[in-house]
Amino acid sequence: MERLTIAGIQHACGPDRAANEATAFAMARLARERGATLICFQELFGAIYFPQRPGASEYFGWAEPIPGPATERLGALARELGATLIGSIFERAMGGLFYDCAVVIAPDGSLAGKWRKMHIPDGSGYFEKYYFTPGDTDYPVFAIGAGADAATGDALRLAVPTCWDQWFPEVARICALRGADLICYPTAIGSELDPALAGADTEEAWRTVMRGHAIANCVYVVAVNRVGIEGEIAFYGGSFVADPTGEGVARLDDRPGILLATIDPARLEFARRLSPFWRDRRPETYGTILTKGGR
Amino acid sequence: MERLTIAGIQHACGPDRAANEATAFAMARLARERGATLICFQELFGAIYFPQRPGASEYFGWAEPIPGPATERLGALARELGATLIGSIFERAMGGLFYDCAVVIAPDGSLAGKWRKMHIPDGSGYFEKYYFTPGDTDYPVFAIGAGADAATGDALRLAVPTCWDQWFPEVARICALRGADLICYPTAIGSELDPALAGADTEEAWRTVMRGHAIANCVYVVAVNRVGIEGEIAFYGGSFVADPTGEGVARLDDRPGILLATIDPARLEFARRLSPFWRDRRPETYGTILTKGGR
Repeated sequence: MERLTIAGIQHACGPDRAANEATAFAMARLARERGATLICFQELFGAIYFPQRPGASEYFGWAEPIPGPATERLGALARELGATLIGSIFERAMGGLFYDCAVVIAPDGSLAGKWRKMHIPDGSGYFEKYYFTPGDTDYPVFAIGAGADAATGDALRLAVPTCWDQWFPEVARICALRGADLICYPTAIGSELDPALAGADTEEAWRTVMRGHAIANCVYVVAVNRVGIEGEIAFYGGSFVADPTGEGVARLDDRPGILLATIDPARLEFARRLSPFWRDRRPETYGTILTKGGR
Repeated sequence: MERLTIAGIQHACGPDRAANEATAFAMARLARERGATLICFQELFGAIYFPQRPGASEYFGWAEPIPGPATERLGALARELGATLIGSIFERAMGGLFYDCAVVIAPDGSLAGKWRKMHIPDGSGYFEKYYFTPGDTDYPVFAIGAGADAATGDALRLAVPTCWDQWFPEVARICALRGADLICYPTAIGSELDPALAGADTEEAWRTVMRGHAIANCVYVVAVNRVGIEGEIAFYGGSFVADPTGEGVARLDDRPGILLATIDPARLEFARRLSPFWRDRRPETYGTILTKGGR
């Protein structure tokens, strides 16, 4: 397995969707110049975070099929750069059925696969349950990079859950049990709008819970968040990479920027020898995980 | 549910087992004077951390039944203090069958229950698989404090996994799904002895993964570790309490000390409104958790 440079593209979005995509693509080109061959965009990077408005049916007009125009443009960029891309798209599966969908685009421009966000939040400023149905793509893991086309089994393995998925330990665990080395979360998170729930440091909690996933699963974890003020929400950026021992190897602040980090297979192997958790798990005792609780 | 003060007793151990227990009990009396009504001792607090030596059969002579002399003495202390105690005992279940067992002792001195450590590590300096069989007590949760004897359902609920259990997200998840408000981990962790695995900040990883459990499960997390040099290991202490948003509300350094913190039901309710994860879990998709992976 070879070392690989990953980039996260953190930017602000406005009402002009073409301009948002142009910004993101220009930053991706810069990231490629700096050595990145895996480039992750933020959640729904082509648009404002429209779920801030509850129940606004007009936004369904922004959704599109996959494959479709957005994946075509991502495919062309992937070919131009010779890089793997992670995009995030408002997907129209059929009339009345919409997903918040992350796509993996191979360097040849082909659609390597997709992850429909499995866990959908709802709450003040983040009214997603109206727009997105919970995903049905069953936690896929994708072979990428130099070894992806070989049958040697030494490709880097990538999973692309989205935003709210990042709070659920089950998601990272399933990805790791399926061989993931690297979990990238396109994200849109910012201020808490419910005054009764103000006062917690949600950015610190957000980062800590994902650093915990990195440690517990011996994987790299990457989160790519947006920045800027949209309506009532100040998106806090803070995109970061945590290595498989949970150490932060790169982190942005609340301004637009390119997150860059090296994914090092030797570090993955180190973590898995330091923390031999797989040996000691007791899945025969974990049945309660498959319940909702509350009994 | 009432507020409750918890204490963690962090101390060094030497070869004199009676002296270790006397130290721990004296510190517990001080903790009670400072207001604690739930007092947690460190893992195997009555003895040196004998699993540092691989395969030393003489230590099986230190194990004892539960209930037995150690729980008798803990029961007397609980009655004296009018406090709930969490002890950690090398348990002899029958000849050839030994557990690393945490016990919960009610303020009336009775044995409220036990947790036999579910996940057993093995590695340089921590050769536990020779001494302990993996536990069979199925993640019990105990009602404690003011509401424990009433049928009102407003007791604080406690789980007491042990040490290596703390690295497994499944453990904290199961405890929370069974109603835990507070997870206390008696612990013995210190230096990494394998030179090939040196260089990672395991104390930071240890704390981060448990803060992550607090956040993901909206529970208080408490870890009580030992200090001191025993053989090759420097136990790093660092006992801490993380609140249900993952914020550290108390933390010791690497010297003996009493960890004190308030468990506040209002903070639990705040976290559960801030982070409504239970609503959005999708247990019907989590089947992979019940496998060992590697396929």
